[in-house]
Amino acid sequence: MRLKDYLSARRQNVEAALDRLLPADEAGGPILEAMRYSLFAGGKRLRPILCLAGAEAVGGDPERVMFCACALEMIHTYSLIHDDLPAMDDDDFRRGVPTNHMVYGEGMAVLAGDGLLTEAGVLLCDPEETKGLDPARVLAASRVVLHAAGYLGMVGGQAVDLASENLQPDLATVQYMHAMKTGALLTASVQSGAILAGGDDDQVAKLMRYGRRIGLAFQIADDLLDLEGDPAKLGKAVGADQARGKMTYPAVVGLPQARAMGQDLVDEAAAIAESLGNCAQPLAMIARYIMERTY
Amino acid sequence: MRLKDYLSARRQNVEAALDRLLPADEAGGPILEAMRYSLFAGGKRLRPILCLAGAEAVGGDPERVMFCACALEMIHTYSLIHDDLPAMDDDDFRRGVPTNHMVYGEGMAVLAGDGLLTEAGVLLCDPEETKGLDPARVLAASRVVLHAAGYLGMVGGQAVDLASENLQPDLATVQYMHAMKTGALLTASVQSGAILAGGDDDQVAKLMRYGRRIGLAFQIADDLLDLEGDPAKLGKAVGADQARGKMTYPAVVGLPQARAMGQDLVDEAAAIAESLGNCAQPLAMIARYIMERTY
Repeated sequence: MRLKDYLSARRQNVEAALDRLLPADEAGGPILEAMRYSLFAGGKRLRPILCLAGAEAVGGDPERVMFCACALEMIHTYSLIHDDLPAMDDDDFRRGVPTNHMVYGEGMAVLAGDGLLTEAGVLLCDPEETKGLDPARVLAASRVVLHAAGYLGMVGGQAVDLASENLQPDLATVQYMHAMKTGALLTASVQSGAILAGGDDDQVAKLMRYGRRIGLAFQIADDLLDLEGDPAKLGKAVGADQARGKMTYPAVVGLPQARAMGQDLVDEAAAIAESLGNCAQPLAMIARYIMERTY
Repeated sequence: MRLKDYLSARRQNVEAALDRLLPADEAGGPILEAMRYSLFAGGKRLRPILCLAGAEAVGGDPERVMFCACALEMIHTYSLIHDDLPAMDDDDFRRGVPTNHMVYGEGMAVLAGDGLLTEAGVLLCDPEETKGLDPARVLAASRVVLHAAGYLGMVGGQAVDLASENLQPDLATVQYMHAMKTGALLTASVQSGAILAGGDDDQVAKLMRYGRRIGLAFQIADDLLDLEGDPAKLGKAVGADQARGKMTYPAVVGLPQARAMGQDLVDEAAAIAESLGNCAQPLAMIARYIMERTY
């Protein structure tokens, strides 16, 4: 199996499902248009793909957890819209296209984010999509996802980030912030897929350990790309973190050390995935791919 | 039963439950502080009280649906924080105290709203709080609440409001906007309480009709208070809607007609509640109270 083909096929499945679950509709007015603008503005669809791969890793059918995969992408997209706002990171472009508030205005961008987050919640308890699944597992998976998105996870990490701009960075704060800001939702992605697909406690615990490692590695890779990446390939300006005095791994431990930390983390994650057997092969490959992007 | 005592007792129960479900914790950092600042900045707690009364109306135990009542108040509070932002209504004060972004800054206010909305979702699938309830009813109630909060409900109504400022108002647009912006969540409040407490389809349908009527009446009453209310009693400036060219009932149909429409709606709602029997007496009294506030 070539990872590139796997990711590309899954990305297409996810995009078709997103279009089915949040269809264009003129009656939806400007808010639906703004929500769909960012939801279909590209992206690797990493969180949904991890959710589908989490289901696969415990021997389940990825299609049955597609609603949860799409909810995760809606949550991720909402967080990008709000992060890009002038009051937050103040970014004009993302993935090569103008950010939501540049097109629809600040007020509508706040609402588009709110709409996507709420719709994710609606999807997680959709009676059609969850039909035939154990309702207790549906509730458990929803809780994992929403908890990871909230003030003890992603939103909390973003708040620490906001509060710590231009403070002297230290490794503990950077790790804590990134574990919350990026790691929590990535971990919840694999976990929720496995929970919905009937994974046992041991499998779910292993996937949590896998998720924490790739979450940290993913942030380190992002920091490296911001320092050394090609703006044309990334579709956004580079060096922005440094200019803003943001706490990043390279800023705290230095570039070679940050790269070594990232590589160790993805190696550990890949080993955990491999211990789950052949079904978890895609997860192992995804882990390695995270650092490959940065070379 | 005196309504004033009933509302006051329920409000105290709700506030104690909110404090238990989102406790102060220094480890929660600035985001939790900002979330709690607005959550405990007063308010009538109307949505949670309607949820508890909805459970009561079908013969259920209001205490068992307290988690849902609190989730509704978190959703309502998040919507107020985001509505008050400079990019939206740009309000500096609410209920006599500075709005969230005036105290914590715009970025943190966006996140505090996001945190409250997400926490509401977490609460709706909390394993402790939902223990012993039928999981299918838990999912159904969550869906009703989140759907009403989303782009087909509250968020959508706010978007129409934002997009229609300074446009020529017409009655159809005003009714549609208010039904989504205020009515949907008020209706979901009574409905979700009844669903969780085991209400049958007929009871839930009746409560939906009740909810729609008080939702519209509530908005009419708010418009009237903005025109004629006492700023000291309201804790905010009056006349703001008019100054901003907002579509309001009095602006479209005139003051006496708006008042008559509001009164008809609460009379109908009270009659529906009374048809459910003695358990729904509080709902009948709450309906009448909505217009009494405006005299």
